[in-house]
Amino acid sequence: MRDFNQQRIRDVLAGSGPATQAELARRTGLSTATISNIVRRMAAASLVTTTPTTSSGRKATLVSLDEDGSFAAGIDFGRRHIRIILATPGHTILAERFQDVPPGLDATEVIDEADRLLQRTLDETGRRREDLLGCGVGVPGPVDRRTGEIVYGAILPEWVGINILDRLRTTLRTPVHLDNDANLGALAEVTWGPHVHAHDLAFVKVGSGIGMGLILRGELYYGNVGLTGELGHTTVAEQGQICRCGSRGCLETVASTSYMLDLLARTRRADRPLTTADLVEAATAGDPAARRVVADAGQALGRALASTANILNPELIIIGGPLATLGHILLDPVRQGMHRHAIPAVSATTDLVMASLGDRAEALGACTLAFQQAAVPA
Amino acid sequence: MRDFNQQRIRDVLAGSGPATQAELARRTGLSTATISNIVRRMAAASLVTTTPTTSSGRKATLVSLDEDGSFAAGIDFGRRHIRIILATPGHTILAERFQDVPPGLDATEVIDEADRLLQRTLDETGRRREDLLGCGVGVPGPVDRRTGEIVYGAILPEWVGINILDRLRTTLRTPVHLDNDANLGALAEVTWGPHVHAHDLAFVKVGSGIGMGLILRGELYYGNVGLTGELGHTTVAEQGQICRCGSRGCLETVASTSYMLDLLARTRRADRPLTTADLVEAATAGDPAARRVVADAGQALGRALASTANILNPELIIIGGPLATLGHILLDPVRQGMHRHAIPAVSATTDLVMASLGDRAEALGACTLAFQQAAVPA
Repeated sequence: MRDFNQQRIRDVLAGSGPATQAELARRTGLSTATISNIVRRMAAASLVTTTPTTSSGRKATLVSLDEDGSFAAGIDFGRRHIRIILATPGHTILAERFQDVPPGLDATEVIDEADRLLQRTLDETGRRREDLLGCGVGVPGPVDRRTGEIVYGAILPEWVGINILDRLRTTLRTPVHLDNDANLGALAEVTWGPHVHAHDLAFVKVGSGIGMGLILRGELYYGNVGLTGELGHTTVAEQGQICRCGSRGCLETVASTSYMLDLLARTRRADRPLTTADLVEAATAGDPAARRVVADAGQALGRALASTANILNPELIIIGGPLATLGHILLDPVRQGMHRHAIPAVSATTDLVMASLGDRAEALGACTLAFQQAAVPA
Repeated sequence: MRDFNQQRIRDVLAGSGPATQAELARRTGLSTATISNIVRRMAAASLVTTTPTTSSGRKATLVSLDEDGSFAAGIDFGRRHIRIILATPGHTILAERFQDVPPGLDATEVIDEADRLLQRTLDETGRRREDLLGCGVGVPGPVDRRTGEIVYGAILPEWVGINILDRLRTTLRTPVHLDNDANLGALAEVTWGPHVHAHDLAFVKVGSGIGMGLILRGELYYGNVGLTGELGHTTVAEQGQICRCGSRGCLETVASTSYMLDLLARTRRADRPLTTADLVEAATAGDPAARRVVADAGQALGRALASTANILNPELIIIGGPLATLGHILLDPVRQGMHRHAIPAVSATTDLVMASLGDRAEALGACTLAFQQAAVPA
């Protein structure tokens, strides 16, 4: 029993990074006295390190896993980029690499790129692929967990209908765990981010698509076959534009970054296509058209989130993706939309904040996924 | 360890009623060999009875708790009725009573009515109140689990802002567990109903209000403070009618039974106000106006459910409430609305069915709540 409890503590630390003894008690269901005994024994055996800290103003003991040489990789595939992070279960980042991906490559070519990038990252740190605990992989589309395929309607049309999981395993030659990028963003917020205490939260990634990862009762929620969090396809305009999913007036048709850039482009002459960075820069600088584009998209997003909050009553909704740096310029209209459409008691009990991990969230969450899966008995 | 596992089996049977050995294995995480050993021992000690049965065409062993004299009460409060069921953990219904409640009574008067009805039900079966395991209570409104109050916006305005839970405990003089009626409908479907295998489902109660109970990963989901499943306040018409919740164009303003009756009443001269039973009768008889009222409300409901399914990807959505007897007359337009607005892969993996327990669902679920809470260590 003692060994079993020690393993549970190890799994929590490996999955979520350093934690106080009180947090460990809450997350394992063990008493604080039991935790304290086991942690003392683990520290004596150089399995963990304890550090004095404070939590809510009180003295507390922070417990971190001692590094034992184990590490995992997190890979985040975007429409136009690959990011790789190598990290340890003790939450040390060993290396990080980012690379643009030219348009037009098919899934196999992009995975080959990732394989070369992973090898360079490993070489840089003097580590071997066969020592990897595994590799978490995030993709910007819904993953059918029965098959490991990205389903129709994903933001990566070239990837649809291919068994990405098999392809990744064959190419990367390490255990691979595939998930939707918004799910990994949610996972990162409760492990690498500041929301380790949150039980029920939604992480919304606003980009060319609008996806949402759900942590319910402290764990990622996958529903029936993994097709959760498709917030971007909430109907907000009965007779709106036809959406790539085949429905009409979906949130994505009025609040994706692609739509926002379209609207902004019509207000100016430009010698090159506008980028999300241009939109962020213009809105931050106070450009009235850019501000209005963000405000209207934010209100529509808030309205869709109101329906989500009415149904799930999460304690926290986190807005992530490339617009997160806009801070209150985006958050204020989202809050207005949510306040306008949620029932008052739900609105009053749901915090709304900006993501804190920037564009590394998905790759960090992918590392966590690899740690967690490595801890699951085979 | 053996006693601990025996208790887990007992708790599952008490919470959910008779189950096959295979189901017990799935729900406790114990091996089928362990289950089989423990069940044999429990049967020898007259704690359970085993009966041969078939499951998916194969021979199986059904395990039921032997009655030990313990029983609980389930009370369902509607806007205009009280229903009480007395039942045993072995799923024997001992007694059932229904009573209309005149309009205009305040919460205290209605609870006093329930107390008298409970006493008559106990007397009828020759049982004593002090032998009750407890009493589950369903109310048609969202319950704030921090306080035991029904929150603003509930369908029972006279009950808002009163500590109903305290009032019930004082009056009924037995352990009381309060929940929203749609939550109890969902619980009943996976315990008394046919959906005992379902992990992730939504139970929708369509009445004067539209509420939804969620079973996620096999358990009722309560979110942050219990205000989940407020499907009736999904915005479906940006510039629609003002709703009692303070928002605008909520699903309830176009798909509640009250709204349907209003629409129908305008098509005919009547010497008394129309009732839901009149609507059901007219639609069943093929009355074109009644059919159209149901079709339009059903499509709107389907659209709101599409957004829910896009986010939660449940395996099953169950439509309950007083219109459930309409069967396909209601189910077909709901399915059309859902198909039109959900992403295709979600639509294809979500079953949509009518509730099977009729207007007893909430009181049966309330009994289950009392069994489950009695099994929780104090």
